[in-house]
Amino acid sequence: MAVNLQAPDAAQLYPVAGVELGVAMAGVRKANRKDLLVVRLAPGTTAAGVFTKNRFCAAPVQVAKKHMANSVRALVVNTGNANAGTGSDGLKRAFSVCSAVAAALRCRPGQVLPFSTGVIMEPLPVDRIVAGVPQAITDLREANWSSAAEAIMTTDTVAKAASVQVRLGSGRATITGIAKGSGMIRPDMATMLGFVATDAKIARHALQKMTREAADQSFNAITVDGDTSTNDAFICLATGKGPVARSKKDLAIVAHAVTQVAKILAQAIVRDGEGATKFVTVRVERGRSPAECRKVAYAIAHSPLVKTAFFASDPNLGRILAAIGYAGVAGLDTSKVDLYLDEVLVAKGGGRHAGYREEQGVAAMKKPEFTVRAVLNRGRAAATVWTCDLSFDYVRINAEYRS
Amino acid sequence: MAVNLQAPDAAQLYPVAGVELGVAMAGVRKANRKDLLVVRLAPGTTAAGVFTKNRFCAAPVQVAKKHMANSVRALVVNTGNANAGTGSDGLKRAFSVCSAVAAALRCRPGQVLPFSTGVIMEPLPVDRIVAGVPQAITDLREANWSSAAEAIMTTDTVAKAASVQVRLGSGRATITGIAKGSGMIRPDMATMLGFVATDAKIARHALQKMTREAADQSFNAITVDGDTSTNDAFICLATGKGPVARSKKDLAIVAHAVTQVAKILAQAIVRDGEGATKFVTVRVERGRSPAECRKVAYAIAHSPLVKTAFFASDPNLGRILAAIGYAGVAGLDTSKVDLYLDEVLVAKGGGRHAGYREEQGVAAMKKPEFTVRAVLNRGRAAATVWTCDLSFDYVRINAEYRS
Repeated sequence: MAVNLQAPDAAQLYPVAGVELGVAMAGVRKANRKDLLVVRLAPGTTAAGVFTKNRFCAAPVQVAKKHMANSVRALVVNTGNANAGTGSDGLKRAFSVCSAVAAALRCRPGQVLPFSTGVIMEPLPVDRIVAGVPQAITDLREANWSSAAEAIMTTDTVAKAASVQVRLGSGRATITGIAKGSGMIRPDMATMLGFVATDAKIARHALQKMTREAADQSFNAITVDGDTSTNDAFICLATGKGPVARSKKDLAIVAHAVTQVAKILAQAIVRDGEGATKFVTVRVERGRSPAECRKVAYAIAHSPLVKTAFFASDPNLGRILAAIGYAGVAGLDTSKVDLYLDEVLVAKGGGRHAGYREEQGVAAMKKPEFTVRAVLNRGRAAATVWTCDLSFDYVRINAEYRS
Repeated sequence: MAVNLQAPDAAQLYPVAGVELGVAMAGVRKANRKDLLVVRLAPGTTAAGVFTKNRFCAAPVQVAKKHMANSVRALVVNTGNANAGTGSDGLKRAFSVCSAVAAALRCRPGQVLPFSTGVIMEPLPVDRIVAGVPQAITDLREANWSSAAEAIMTTDTVAKAASVQVRLGSGRATITGIAKGSGMIRPDMATMLGFVATDAKIARHALQKMTREAADQSFNAITVDGDTSTNDAFICLATGKGPVARSKKDLAIVAHAVTQVAKILAQAIVRDGEGATKFVTVRVERGRSPAECRKVAYAIAHSPLVKTAFFASDPNLGRILAAIGYAGVAGLDTSKVDLYLDEVLVAKGGGRHAGYREEQGVAAMKKPEFTVRAVLNRGRAAATVWTCDLSFDYVRINAEYRS
């Protein structure tokens, strides 16, 4: 049901020198599915990350944030259990997983970043995960991104990966990434889980800066259901096995490529949003600040009434005006607001445009992808958010998730 | 499908001296349904109101707010069309309706408050409404509240009315009210439409004060879908045909009764929320301020993941912790948060309570009504919000609304 989204072609995912990936079926929650990923990183790899702002930050995220201070040598990711809302016991369990991976890879537990995704508030089955580690390690290889993307899926219907190559002053660099996410998507730092790696050599502070900027233009600009996850994490890794990125120009090239990969992954999450049948770009223009444009865009993108109208291809566009009106923009003059559906002018000066015909609205909304564009006419700022519709399947998936 | 909600028994709705109600089938949107209500008020009636904060405030609401400054003699309410997002033409149409009612009742147009509810951004069919006015006026009588409650329904499945009598120093006073609302419910002043009248004689400023307080404890504490309507209005009327309420004690008695009626009406809206199968009280306790408690309560009540879990009777309670975590309470120490489902302690100190058994959660959630109680343990404030679940029918109703 994903909207214009296909599983990645393994042949088009460039391996990243210094990054080996191995997966296993550990039976964390269900048997016979890939649910454990171990990533081994070359010595000297720099790492950067942005994490959920949810106060119920999951145990693995807390541990990963702490371990980021060290020289990172491995990641370990399980699906089926989020190890969130699990208190101090959850922290111990996350650390046990790091210890098992560290012992197998001969590094310190503090050099391993753990990540979990799945059901919240249930104890992490450490024994099963630890038992699965050797199988994942046997599987370690550089040309394994596609399988890794599959291993981190939960309610995702399609694996998500993207890869680009760019030319720097001293040679060709590769940027490859994977992500997972489908529900509980309203990232407030990054999506559920996103990992992007490059073989470029990048200093840590430069990597952190480009990670944050990439997140803002990708994972921080999407929403499926407005629920900010406890486990959001977006990690960028630079192994330094390829060309050095130190000049301003090279750094800009890599940053752009990282953002490009992150954007493809973030949009893939929306295309595969739970129950999604439409991929909708919400663009708000001519506001006073990017912040107020984002407020309006999210009000539209979160409104269940707007989202069900998307699902029905029903241009019940007054619902969009209502959402703009309650978005909380102080002093908004509604008599200046224009609204477009793709190129069709629907509302002009806060009211229905005289030339607008219902058939035009229906035609635009019947497409699997379209753009809602609100023009506030009070400034020069703009913002874009990507979202999906609210369908019967969203309710079905979430009512049945644990059964 | 409404949750524990029955249509009002006409015999139990006390008429209010000085308030006559008349309905008509004007064919605003559909034929053969009551869709027009005219209310005639005795001279000397005081009126108070709270209105939507949506910047796309509907034309009739703008007109009503202005006319509130005058001595109000009538209300006119149509369903089927909200006359919102209609610009200056909408204002003219709302005023035309007032003029027609004023001519028929021999008062000035400025003494008529207009209200509309229904589809947004479509022109109000003034001709049909004006043509229906004489029929509504012929129907005017005091013992007509039940029929009036039916005339203002849109996607409501059950009419909503409540009535109480209280004893004041100088005699018995009656308080009777009606409301409508089912979707686009996240009042930010009052619900879609609520009208409460009393025969007590109450000075205007005292009436305005009790109206605002009643709204805060009723219509401003409910949510169905988080969408704040363009047409919200809650109006209180005091005809002065009954006892005088001037002493502090009498005013407190009337204020309490108005709040009581408003609360019944507000809860009725949630019980009849679009697609609702559960009526859920969300109570947040021991926060630092009522505002932060409300933030947390609304985060829980708006989360589509929490609401679909309610629908499924699935105690997937980590979703509630996640919502608490992203509610935006600065400095919240999650290791102090306790969570109850009715009397069952589910999470203690931010993690699953050791003694909690899944069967207990399922048993509580299978009931049509239950309470989610989050205890923040950081202060003395509390807040309550009422909401419903998110079901297949919510999507069906809103995907099909206009077809």
